[in-house]
Amino acid sequence: MFSELQPSQRTIMTPGPVETDPRVLRAMSSPILGQFDPEFTAIMNDVMAMLRQLYRTENRWAFPVDGTSRSGIEAVLCSMIEPGDRVLVPIYGRFGYLLTEICERHGADVTTIECEWGEVFQQETIIQTIESLAPKIVALVHGETSTGRQQPLDQIGQACRKNGALFVVDAVATIGGTEMNVDEWQIDAVIGGTQKCLSVPSGLAPITYNERAEAVIQARKKVERGIATEDELSLNAGRPAIGSNYFDLSQLQDYWSERRLNHHTEATSMVYALYEGLRVVLQEGLEERFARHRYHEQALVAGLKGMGLTLYGSEEAKLPMVTCIEIPEGIDGESVRAMLLEQFGIEIASSFGPLKGKIWRIGTMGYSCRKENVLAVLSGLEAVLLYHGAAIESGRSVPEALNVYMQ
Amino acid sequence: MFSELQPSQRTIMTPGPVETDPRVLRAMSSPILGQFDPEFTAIMNDVMAMLRQLYRTENRWAFPVDGTSRSGIEAVLCSMIEPGDRVLVPIYGRFGYLLTEICERHGADVTTIECEWGEVFQQETIIQTIESLAPKIVALVHGETSTGRQQPLDQIGQACRKNGALFVVDAVATIGGTEMNVDEWQIDAVIGGTQKCLSVPSGLAPITYNERAEAVIQARKKVERGIATEDELSLNAGRPAIGSNYFDLSQLQDYWSERRLNHHTEATSMVYALYEGLRVVLQEGLEERFARHRYHEQALVAGLKGMGLTLYGSEEAKLPMVTCIEIPEGIDGESVRAMLLEQFGIEIASSFGPLKGKIWRIGTMGYSCRKENVLAVLSGLEAVLLYHGAAIESGRSVPEALNVYMQ
Repeated sequence: MFSELQPSQRTIMTPGPVETDPRVLRAMSSPILGQFDPEFTAIMNDVMAMLRQLYRTENRWAFPVDGTSRSGIEAVLCSMIEPGDRVLVPIYGRFGYLLTEICERHGADVTTIECEWGEVFQQETIIQTIESLAPKIVALVHGETSTGRQQPLDQIGQACRKNGALFVVDAVATIGGTEMNVDEWQIDAVIGGTQKCLSVPSGLAPITYNERAEAVIQARKKVERGIATEDELSLNAGRPAIGSNYFDLSQLQDYWSERRLNHHTEATSMVYALYEGLRVVLQEGLEERFARHRYHEQALVAGLKGMGLTLYGSEEAKLPMVTCIEIPEGIDGESVRAMLLEQFGIEIASSFGPLKGKIWRIGTMGYSCRKENVLAVLSGLEAVLLYHGAAIESGRSVPEALNVYMQ
Repeated sequence: MFSELQPSQRTIMTPGPVETDPRVLRAMSSPILGQFDPEFTAIMNDVMAMLRQLYRTENRWAFPVDGTSRSGIEAVLCSMIEPGDRVLVPIYGRFGYLLTEICERHGADVTTIECEWGEVFQQETIIQTIESLAPKIVALVHGETSTGRQQPLDQIGQACRKNGALFVVDAVATIGGTEMNVDEWQIDAVIGGTQKCLSVPSGLAPITYNERAEAVIQARKKVERGIATEDELSLNAGRPAIGSNYFDLSQLQDYWSERRLNHHTEATSMVYALYEGLRVVLQEGLEERFARHRYHEQALVAGLKGMGLTLYGSEEAKLPMVTCIEIPEGIDGESVRAMLLEQFGIEIASSFGPLKGKIWRIGTMGYSCRKENVLAVLSGLEAVLLYHGAAIESGRSVPEALNVYMQ
């Protein structure tokens, strides 16, 4: 009744999930090890070491939460927020709203500032709000895939530190694709995504946090009954609890520490995937990988402009791995996407909320960020737009991209 | 610096994670599909249909939560519990404590009843407590791997219904290995595990719940800002929120429904794994699979008794896929486990809390539950025990198991 699994080979040019690196796919078919097998805990330690390199941090804590990207965001926020804590969330797209949703579920007193979608904030604006509001936490999206914008944030960590705030950054879209200098930028906690520039399937959320964040988390540490010692049970009694067991970072870090205190059963195959994905990234080199993302972005943008399409949003704040295009007047954006998928096996994305039906989004992320994919999406999109009667320049898109590639 | 991934081939005889079925390992190396690709949403629908067969339910909602088993437990409980709600948790091992931990994190007023570890409750005892306490929710572990016991519960759902309570069952250890008749037993919500009798890696938590549970969940439904319509935003305003965004089943079910309302990015490769794991289970047949678990348990028990070892706990309440053994006087249990792993590549488990250092636990689950594994663990354990100077019968264990197999 249920047929063999045989998914088609797609060219995935969305802002995630993107194509998985073939080395990562192969790694996932390795046999399972037990969660406390010394061979497996050695792999866990290597994953931590590689994550530190990826995040450019000396933080002790760098490990994945077992869930999709937003599980990492919720783990960080719910472990740091106590009910009533003041949190500042600057919003410039959908995923800023997600941060407020998560903070509010955990009882935070959330203040938002917003700028127009398609733009980002001047850092000075955020810093002034931090000074006047004095929040406990500032939560900010680094790369907002819904609008294709990237928020500069290298000055904000310093301002947080000066004003006694903790700085939490959602780097789900940017990690492994563009600079994320956690220590240099004085970021206290960061959440990355696997299914975007790392080209690992969705299902883990690698995070890192420093001693400032850890101090806040450990103040509510409890060890589970059923595995706690007598001493720990009496310590438990005097402390308020973090609002989730699964997302309790004080427990997760015990599991990822030498103590290996049992919590969940680690998602073995996904850890294999992350291990191999991080090896691929570090073997390529971070700077080389960031340059590759900019290079293919340049070719893609040249090709889209060659077609006469208009890019959406502030050029200066463009996210290098997401390119947003205004859907031409009179064209049904969903019909174009469907035809691209059905006839060419190429997937591009629409967007959310106020941008639904207004823009397409093309991702050039990780393993999907390569020449043949950029050329395929340009030629496919041109053909489909012509089929839909769009008033575009024909025959100029791919040559413009080739100009970049054949320089 | 970081070497090729090449995990050893282990014989994993713990109560989970166990060896992954090779068909499942291969499925995970299939290329990724986009989360809204019609090919992928068809796979999601098939997974739901197969889960209904596994759980023997007509429930509309049967889908995985993206996280390890306890993520499913927390999703169910936090979506059903409102702060102050009375919850009854009968405890007969470590994972009963886990249920209380999770309930308390979400503000429940938890009442526990406990029986001695190694025993289970008379159903009548639980039913009487339900009648006197009138809880909103009864949360119960079906198979308690920490003690290797199975709680009979076919009468409890009916009692819950009569007393206006919702019945939530943790079937992480039992699903796919022994009977779980969700509709017949009138269970309102159930959480299964992947890494045990389904032989799929850890990382998803398949759940199912009925209309009674759904009504409670939907009373606190909110649609995320950034994707909500104007009408939905005004509905949101009048409702209290579920205490987590990631675990909000009212949002997860929208994602798994025809509406496909964006929430997280589904863990594609893990869904492939679950898809193939469920196909393997249904092709074998549920009754045949349950019988296989009992058959190999019988051989294992015969072999262990042949060695002269003493089984731990009430025989009548024994979990068919977990066999607990008292560590013989004077033997260092951890030294035995380490030697079994290092010399034979065989992993067995210790236990938690009061049972730490007192018992070993051997799992016969899913793909690990097969003849060569049972014979390997018996001969390995005998050799290691002799090496440690244990007073056991030599040369009688494997023949006793073979008596079962060669009948």
